[in-house]
Amino acid sequence: MRKVAIGQAGGPTAVLNASLVGLVEGLRGKAEVYPVFNGYQGLARDRPRPMDDELYEWIRSHLRVPGACLGSGRYDFTPERMEQAVMNLKREDIHTLAFIGGNGTMSALKRLGEIADDIGYELQIVGIPKTVDNDLGETDHAPGFASAARFVALSVRNIVKDLEAMRNFEQVRIIETMGRNAGWLALSGGFLARGRESGPHLIYLPEVPVTREQILSEVSRAVKEWGIAAVVVSEGFTFAGSAKIKRQSVNGRMVLGGISRLMEQLIHEQLGYHVRSENLGMNQRSASFAVSLQDRREAYEAGGQAASFIAAGLSGIMVNIQRQPDECYNYVIGQVSLDRVVHSGERLLPPKFIADTSEYYAWLEPILGEPIPSYPANWKRGIRDEPERIYP
Amino acid sequence: MRKVAIGQAGGPTAVLNASLVGLVEGLRGKAEVYPVFNGYQGLARDRPRPMDDELYEWIRSHLRVPGACLGSGRYDFTPERMEQAVMNLKREDIHTLAFIGGNGTMSALKRLGEIADDIGYELQIVGIPKTVDNDLGETDHAPGFASAARFVALSVRNIVKDLEAMRNFEQVRIIETMGRNAGWLALSGGFLARGRESGPHLIYLPEVPVTREQILSEVSRAVKEWGIAAVVVSEGFTFAGSAKIKRQSVNGRMVLGGISRLMEQLIHEQLGYHVRSENLGMNQRSASFAVSLQDRREAYEAGGQAASFIAAGLSGIMVNIQRQPDECYNYVIGQVSLDRVVHSGERLLPPKFIADTSEYYAWLEPILGEPIPSYPANWKRGIRDEPERIYP
Repeated sequence: MRKVAIGQAGGPTAVLNASLVGLVEGLRGKAEVYPVFNGYQGLARDRPRPMDDELYEWIRSHLRVPGACLGSGRYDFTPERMEQAVMNLKREDIHTLAFIGGNGTMSALKRLGEIADDIGYELQIVGIPKTVDNDLGETDHAPGFASAARFVALSVRNIVKDLEAMRNFEQVRIIETMGRNAGWLALSGGFLARGRESGPHLIYLPEVPVTREQILSEVSRAVKEWGIAAVVVSEGFTFAGSAKIKRQSVNGRMVLGGISRLMEQLIHEQLGYHVRSENLGMNQRSASFAVSLQDRREAYEAGGQAASFIAAGLSGIMVNIQRQPDECYNYVIGQVSLDRVVHSGERLLPPKFIADTSEYYAWLEPILGEPIPSYPANWKRGIRDEPERIYP
Repeated sequence: MRKVAIGQAGGPTAVLNASLVGLVEGLRGKAEVYPVFNGYQGLARDRPRPMDDELYEWIRSHLRVPGACLGSGRYDFTPERMEQAVMNLKREDIHTLAFIGGNGTMSALKRLGEIADDIGYELQIVGIPKTVDNDLGETDHAPGFASAARFVALSVRNIVKDLEAMRNFEQVRIIETMGRNAGWLALSGGFLARGRESGPHLIYLPEVPVTREQILSEVSRAVKEWGIAAVVVSEGFTFAGSAKIKRQSVNGRMVLGGISRLMEQLIHEQLGYHVRSENLGMNQRSASFAVSLQDRREAYEAGGQAASFIAAGLSGIMVNIQRQPDECYNYVIGQVSLDRVVHSGERLLPPKFIADTSEYYAWLEPILGEPIPSYPANWKRGIRDEPERIYP
């Protein structure tokens, strides 16, 4: 029976375990499965051990659990460690490797395949996509993204409602989302508002640097128009003409983030408004209570399809989601070569989605899962139809 | 027909509008309702106008919408402005005032009643409780708290799952919750874990100052035991011997917050772990997608019961929730004098809940709404049962 090592790598998502469940269920009875704990670190250091029934059932119990039940993590996967990983597989006579991950994972898988080739060891390689940023190329979208987008869309809508209630005290809120290079998640923050008066009034993306002056002018216009300005900004946004904002982490490692705090400061100092900023944080990649059921289903199917591709002997591929050109949302779980995925690099928002957000939202809607009921429109007695003042 | 001015004040909750809906439905046909926009600011400055059918239906459409649809906000309600507010009501011959709010709102209502007394104007006063902090006295709990607690419990559990997956890279996460003086929300972060290995491993409350040394020792012990330490901290927590942590807001106003960032720095510098901190933010008071249906129901009922108390002529009261000593959760929506509420001040966690969190969680469970399925226990091959290492 074919021996298959499987694992998870990188930052978790709300549906990463669903892909793993699809994969182990698909391989059940057709292969001997070697689950790798702790991602590429486990692959490089630990002796692979076959899955017993207990571990199989334990993995299956994670269908609706966020995180990565095998452990994923980050690891400095050096060329030497990659060679060790291949040697570990060879030692156990494991000729198939399937990992669930993002861009970094796909690059590593490609390299592992090349190393195996170099030493003449036959190694079948299959990648299964996962990302909250949606920056993986050669797939319509990747499992994990839609749940994160649903969380962001819901959170932004609710936080704007909260701000509306506080308008006599607070004028501006800045909500920071994940998305180091791509604005898919940040732009999702407008899905439930779509430019109506209820905000968010402004969204800033990594793909579109904007000057400080323009931001101040846009925020000021929004406050004049609506009394408040709800702003969504991607962690990867940069002021035009500036380098990416990094904050000196206390861990001594430069990390992205902090753009919302900088904007808070800028807007308060220059415009005098009461401004509050916040980061939507790790809930974006783990909020099981805001998960898109369509996303979870696709994640599960991607894992299952990977098992079929393994049985069919395909190698050097990543499973992908191919949206069909039908009137209603329809998709095929297919595959594409890892070479093409790695070559295409980080996928940014296409210009057409930035130019016309309604096109983006039409693309986004079917993968967000269950329809979300609208909130009522704002009462006409808004900022521009003030009640009669008795006292100033 | 009795004329009743109604309004919302202070920070919104996910179910504040449900109380308003209960109130307007309860008053329908029995009173002429004057909705006050923008909280106490509107009460002080604007001429009250009666609700028409359109506004009534618009308010009712907010049953499931977070925020405060009339506007609540913060307002410096000076003695002069309070007098203006009473004069505004007198001018329209409005003899009843019902507001939904927290401790500040109840104090203001009490003062408004006294001012009316002083000038011999008959003014019936009814308060309806609302808070996410649960720091209102003389009620078993206040509407809004349980939904916030549900969001915190779910978020903490998910973020811990995410951390477990990242354990080869990150050791400590600090999750900051609301709660300026009371730890109800922070302690809710442990509801879904209850001291099992899955964390949170440590919870720090405003009621229990702890020294820096003790925190370092506790975090270090948790990491040794479990490989990670998930820490929940209330925004109002203070190091023993220190003043409350305030950060200089860019708005020039000293605000609470930032304790999680300080703890991140302390733990990283002293113990060298990779630490990340985050604040759960405004979702705590507006996450309609994690609302407790029991909380929403109680919020709605509190509004409806307020209408009955108004019809019965009660005054100087706050509606409250009286838990019955039954085996199963049971409650009566009753009332208590505003004097007692104001006199009792901010309600902290009782010592018995801090000493035995299982007592607290038994108290909390029925108000959190629909039961939340458990996550599977961690795999036995955890930190203490390492797989066989081929390489170090």
